[in-house]
Formats: sequence, C-alpha cells, structure tokens
Amino acid sequence: MTAASIPTTTRIVCEQVAPAIVDLAHNSRLVLDVLDRAVADGADVLVLPELVTSGYVFDSPAEARSVAITPDDEVFAAIAVRLEGTRTVVVLGFCELGTDGALYNSAAVVSADGVLAVYRKVHLWDRENLVFTPGSSAPPVVETPHGRLGVIVCYDLEFPEMPRSLALAGADLIVVPTNWPRTEVPEGEKPPEIIHAQAAARSNGVFIACCDRTGLERGQAWTEGTVILDQFGWPLDRVVGEGRAVADVFLPLARDKSISPHNDLLGDRRPGIYSTEKTV
Amino acid sequence: MTAASIPTTTRIVCEQVAPAIVDLAHNSRLVLDVLDRAVADGADVLVLPELVTSGYVFDSPAEARSVAITPDDEVFAAIAVRLEGTRTVVVLGFCELGTDGALYNSAAVVSADGVLAVYRKVHLWDRENLVFTPGSSAPPVVETPHGRLGVIVCYDLEFPEMPRSLALAGADLIVVPTNWPRTEVPEGEKPPEIIHAQAAARSNGVFIACCDRTGLERGQAWTEGTVILDQFGWPLDRVVGEGRAVADVFLPLARDKSISPHNDLLGDRRPGIYSTEKTV
Repeated sequence: MTAASIPTTTRIVCEQVAPAIVDLAHNSRLVLDVLDRAVADGADVLVLPELVTSGYVFDSPAEARSVAITPDDEVFAAIAVRLEGTRTVVVLGFCELGTDGALYNSAAVVSADGVLAVYRKVHLWDRENLVFTPGSSAPPVVETPHGRLGVIVCYDLEFPEMPRSLALAGADLIVVPTNWPRTEVPEGEKPPEIIHAQAAARSNGVFIACCDRTGLERGQAWTEGTVILDQFGWPLDRVVGEGRAVADVFLPLARDKSISPHNDLLGDRRPGIYSTEKTV
Repeated sequence: MTAASIPTTTRIVCEQVAPAIVDLAHNSRLVLDVLDRAVADGADVLVLPELVTSGYVFDSPAEARSVAITPDDEVFAAIAVRLEGTRTVVVLGFCELGTDGALYNSAAVVSADGVLAVYRKVHLWDRENLVFTPGSSAPPVVETPHGRLGVIVCYDLEFPEMPRSLALAGADLIVVPTNWPRTEVPEGEKPPEIIHAQAAARSNGVFIACCDRTGLERGQAWTEGTVILDQFGWPLDRVVGEGRAVADVFLPLARDKSISPHNDLLGDRRPGIYSTEKTV
C-alpha cells in the first residue's frame, strides 16, 4: 500500500450559523468567512444550513425569487476560488432559480473544481410548498477524495426511503443541510429530527451530518440541532446556538454493513415483501 | 352517532415477562396467568414477547424443534377460551413448526374467536438464521374491534420498509413482540431499538407497542426495553425489569396523517424517486 492509498480520517465540520433573510450579500460574506475558518481548521467536509444564501421565512414567492440564484452564481465561483489547493468539499443550501423559471430549495456540493452537484429538495415542508417546486430527481451521491457523499435536505430525512436510497447508491456519509423549526419536545427526549437521523444512520450503517441554523428569523426559532452521527447513529458532536460541530471520522467504516456474523444491513433487506403503495 | 359507534380509548398492555428456555408447560402457564391478570385490568390489546412459549437461546435446531408448535396447539385454544366474553386481542411470539417441516420465529394474533393471524418473522437476527426459516409473506394487518393491528417481530423493526408497509396497509397500531439482546449504549442515549421504534412511529403516524422480555437466559441479558409509543413516537409508558407497560390510547388518531396544513406523512412520499436496489 502506498502512502497515497492509506485511508485517513475525514474532518467533518457543520457550521450552525444565522443567515439573514433576503440578504444575499450578507449571507455570501457569512459563507465565505465561515469557509475560510473551517479550511484553516482542516475541514475536509464543511456543511452549512439549508437556504443559507437566502434565509428561510419568505413573505412571498416574489421575495424568494428576488434572492434566487443559479449554480453559475458568483458565490459558488468565490467558494471554489477559496478552496483552491485544498481537498475540502462544501455543501450548502441555496434558493435556486431553475432554467425552467421555477424556484427550488436546493443544495450545492462545491470543491476547488467548482459545483460538483446540485440537489433539489424532493419533500417540501409546510409553506415551502407555496414557494418552491419539489425536485424530481433522486438525491446525488458524489465521489470525493474523502468518500462518497450523499445529499438530502431537512424534511427529506424523515422519509426513511431517502437515506436508504443513498446507502444503496453507496453513500458513506449523508450530509443534510437543514432549517429545523423549533418544536415542543417532551422532557428527556431529543429533538425528533435527531431521532430520525439516528435511526437512518443505524439502519443504513452510514455517517450522517445534519447542519441546522440559529438566529430568530421573523419570529421563527430553530431546533439548533446540528449533529454529526457515527455509522451506528451515536452522536459524535453536537452544538446548540451559534457554533460548530466537528468530528474526525473514518468513512470506510460505512462500507462494512455486517452487524453480526449472520447479518448485513443492506443484504438482509427483503424488497419483494415490502409494499410501497397505499392499500387502505 | 349511536353509542356503539362512539370511538373509545384502547388499553394496550405489554407484559415484560421471563419465559423459561425449552419449557412449554411453564411458559403456557405464564402466558395464561399474565393473560388473566391483563384481562381483569381491562386490557384491549395484550402484547407478549417474541418466542414467549419456547424461550430464545436454543442450543441447537433440534432443541428448538422440540418445543415448536402449530397454530392448532392447545395453548392458543386455551387463550381463546380465557378470552370468551371479552374483546381482548393477544399477540404473542412462538416457535412455529410449519406444515413444510421448517421452523419459523412467528407471532400469533388471538381473540375469543381463535387465532386470527400468524406472522412469520421475515428478518432473522444473528444465530436465528441457524434455526429458523425466514418468513416469505408480508406482515399482516388484522382488523379488530379496537382498530387495525399490524404485527412484526423484533429485528424486523430495524428495516423501515416494514413499519412503512404496515402503515400503507392501514395499521393504526404496530405491535412488536421482541427479545432484544442487551447491547452497550452511550450515556444519555436510549436503547437503539427504541430509537428505531420512535422514528418508525413518527414517520408513519402510527402507535407502536414493543414487548421485550426479561430474565437472564443461558447468560444472555436483555434490553428490557418494553415501550408503548404514541403516533408522534413519544413514549407513553416504559418498563425495566419484570413488569408491564400500560397506555390508554385513542387509535383513530393514527388515521390522520396530516402534520402541517401542507403535509401528509404518507401522501408526501415520492416512490418514483426512491431506489430499492443496490447500485454500488
């Protein structure tokens, strides 16, 4: 084995920041500042929240449209320039203007080579349905120097079919830009979105990094539930309020799906027995 | 609305007992004793552990075969007799001898009318694979006076396709006879099986009742994680050690899958986008 082929750990950083609603310039600066710091700190994979370029609580579709950008936008070019000479991969949410004129709640995967992939959120939450068109493509799995990254956004994670699809497509790490609106949680319980993430990591033997946001926005508070989970679903790092979660993980562990001498998480599936359509 | 049609609450009881390994007579008495007490206490649905008639830690397939029974066995007839004049439904695990001569890790649904359904565990855990043949049929949804009961067993629950299939088939309550071998859990975390159950309840808007066992068996300890969850995945009652979990629930709540003015747990699914086969 040559030095170049020895697998190393991957540093995952999630930055739980507070984007400003409908302020592209401010949010671009925020993204670049955070990026510089994360790169300096050795981040291999940096995850930022859903809609970090635009904010979330839009008054109207028109307002969202006013801050919608395309993957050709200068902010992505600026990120790629900052990443020159690094192997860092950044995943961030943005309000996308499609060539079809529709708005999408999207996430971009960016490296020094530019935008590697764009994913359009498939499952829209609540009033997002009044603003965005749901994506119509499967979530991507992106080959990176660190391993295979699957990408979904927020509410997508509550559909176990999504992390399952990504695991079947070979994802080692699922990154989830989110804006989790704060909800009431019984005492002693975790935020429900983290429970979904833990179950998804365990069922699929994959690492999961959820990057939530902070900052009260037009009266809306957030779970601030940013968390990085190992392939058994246990939290490696978590942050509440403004700040970052950091974990150094060995992503090849996600390629071993055996959980007993007689069990394999993906191999044990019985697709012929499962139903996918309502019968009642 | 007539009096008869007014929906009422359903009392779910899970009895976390300790069956004895390879002792049919003892376990039958245990089941009937527990049943009498639960009926006296107003149980509408009584759940007992996986393989409660036989024990779990078999030395060999031959030993399991020595305590394998069919749905015609007298223990089920005895349960039905005890249930005469009640609307109670009992779900219990048993070691089944199939007419094909194979052994199955099964669960029976029994009322005063007799055995209503038998389910053969589809996903076998670890050394169960050396003893049992996996089931080849979808888990059943049984119409009862209390609502629609879906049945799976233990490790099945870690495949989100299983609770999803049951929800799509109309289950209001998923009952899960289990024998959860104890595992190490990080401080402050729940047993992993409960995390799976919570996520499954939330993703599908269904109640879930998991009945685990207690009692060291041939050196094997158990999670003792018996828990009844509401349709949001929050625990209503839980027990550790020998004892019962009890919850009075309003099962029709599971028929409302709307979780925001714009979202429906099952309606929001995008089956055309999900993959079900490995591509890597």
